[in-house]
Amino acid sequence: MHRTVERMLRTNPEPPFAPADALSACIHACIETAQVCTACADACVGEHLPGRLDACIRLNLDCADICTATSRILSRQQNPDLAIVAMMIELCAAACDACARECDRHAEHHAHCQICAAACHRCFQACRSMMTGAPTDYLAH
Amino acid sequence: MHRTVERMLRTNPEPPFAPADALSACIHACIETAQVCTACADACVGEHLPGRLDACIRLNLDCADICTATSRILSRQQNPDLAIVAMMIELCAAACDACARECDRHAEHHAHCQICAAACHRCFQACRSMMTGAPTDYLAH
Amino acid sequence: MHRTVERMLRTNPEPPFAPADALSACIHACIETAQVCTACADACVGEHLPGRLDACIRLNLDCADICTATSRILSRQQNPDLAIVAMMIELCAAACDACARECDRHAEHHAHCQICAAACHRCFQACRSMMTGAPTDYLAH
Amino acid sequence: MHRTVERMLRTNPEPPFAPADALSACIHACIETAQVCTACADACVGEHLPGRLDACIRLNLDCADICTATSRILSRQQNPDLAIVAMMIELCAAACDACARECDRHAEHHAHCQICAAACHRCFQACRSMMTGAPTDYLAH
Repeated sequence: MHRTVERMLRTNPEPPFAPADALSACIHACIETAQVCTACADACVGEHLPGRLDACIRLNLDCADICTATSRILSRQQNPDLAIVAMMIELCAAACDACARECDRHAEHHAHCQICAAACHRCFQACRSMMTGAPTDYLAH
Repeated sequence: MHRTVERMLRTNPEPPFAPADALSACIHACIETAQVCTACADACVGEHLPGRLDACIRLNLDCADICTATSRILSRQQNPDLAIVAMMIELCAAACDACARECDRHAEHHAHCQICAAACHRCFQACRSMMTGAPTDYLAH
Repeated sequence: MHRTVERMLRTNPEPPFAPADALSACIHACIETAQVCTACADACVGEHLPGRLDACIRLNLDCADICTATSRILSRQQNPDLAIVAMMIELCAAACDACARECDRHAEHHAHCQICAAACHRCFQACRSMMTGAPTDYLAH
Repeated sequence: MHRTVERMLRTNPEPPFAPADALSACIHACIETAQVCTACADACVGEHLPGRLDACIRLNLDCADICTATSRILSRQQNPDLAIVAMMIELCAAACDACARECDRHAEHHAHCQICAAACHRCFQACRSMMTGAPTDYLAH
């Protein structure tokens, strides 16, 4: 799928606002994390541990919504408002970081939380690499 | 609908993180704006004015996605991560402000842009009132 | 908000595929139900009754996703594929009916389920009135 | 990513309602198609060919919303309402089929439509294989 994302970026009449490989990696990470968080929320409900996994369920649902919005916004190349795009990536990084930390606390007991923490961490890194550090600070404020 | 939103806030076992009237006004504004922006993007495509309304279409689509995510996140009361919630509202305010400004430029010629600019402006104000100013600075950093 | 939805329908360069009042009522019901179901899922998690409200949480989450998709698709007027639109409305009616029935089972003990059942029922009716019965069988197969 | 989707299915306390490999293939196809359709709508707007690609833009946007909803619903394993799930998959197949046909008409001139038609066709097939034919008719009515 990663390759399909990148091919779409390269066939848009408008060139992407950032190198296609970094951008497609970030889009891919966002949609993977949206799926994994949706599944992890469902699995956490099914564990029947009231109170224990509540914060995890909440962060999973929020993170899924934020990653979905981010993947859609990054998939568009026409007339981007780069200030909005930058805020979206920054929020996505923050949500993934928070969700990764919370899932990590339950990783020992629940394999779905372990997989979810890893996906969130990859997405956090992909977002960060869009925001900071030469040569990838495409969206520096 | 405004009243239904507020009744849901008041019947959750967890009290809302902000006064129910301000929060329900913000949720209501987000879902209204998501709908209006979705419709405005569609109408702008149908105007058949290539180039003229492209930035408007793009901002409408992004703003709809951001407002949808914001309305979902604000509708949850269990275990909120207030830093994430604050970033989401701030991004929603910024997207609505940008979309209102762009739509305003076409308001004279396109009634859908005029209605959309007004909805975006109301949502911007509702988000700002969640962020700043006593007694509503629930999410001050 | 109902009025804003209808004004958007009337200012689109393409007339709506169905009478604007019935269509705007259906769009309004969909976005109300998406919000209420999102809030009800969150409240049900917070009741800490493992097993008891699981089916309710699941139906709430599915119904919210279906209502969101339906509201977006009904908000577009350009070049509708009426077979797709009809299937979407039919699915939305089925999801709202299932969610209303499940929430109704918990309405006595949980006010959020009572409010949610009522919203789902209204949305079911709005979808049905788009599908069947003169003069509103706009999408008869 | 395909493997991550499947690992999530296998670590949920509730076994999936269908074989994990077919189900994860379908989820994967849905999220890929949602991304590709979002990107194709954007690229079509950017081609500046008013009238020519309007039906394509509309189907892309609808198909993206439907695939997103389908991917979320298939990612949940707790207490599925199989009638709702079946209708969702059937609608997703229909939307992907319609979008593939429309994009195919523009594939010669626009590479993004060619890639999108291929993704939609793969998703149509993945949905069909969930609906029909032994041993995969998990959701036969």
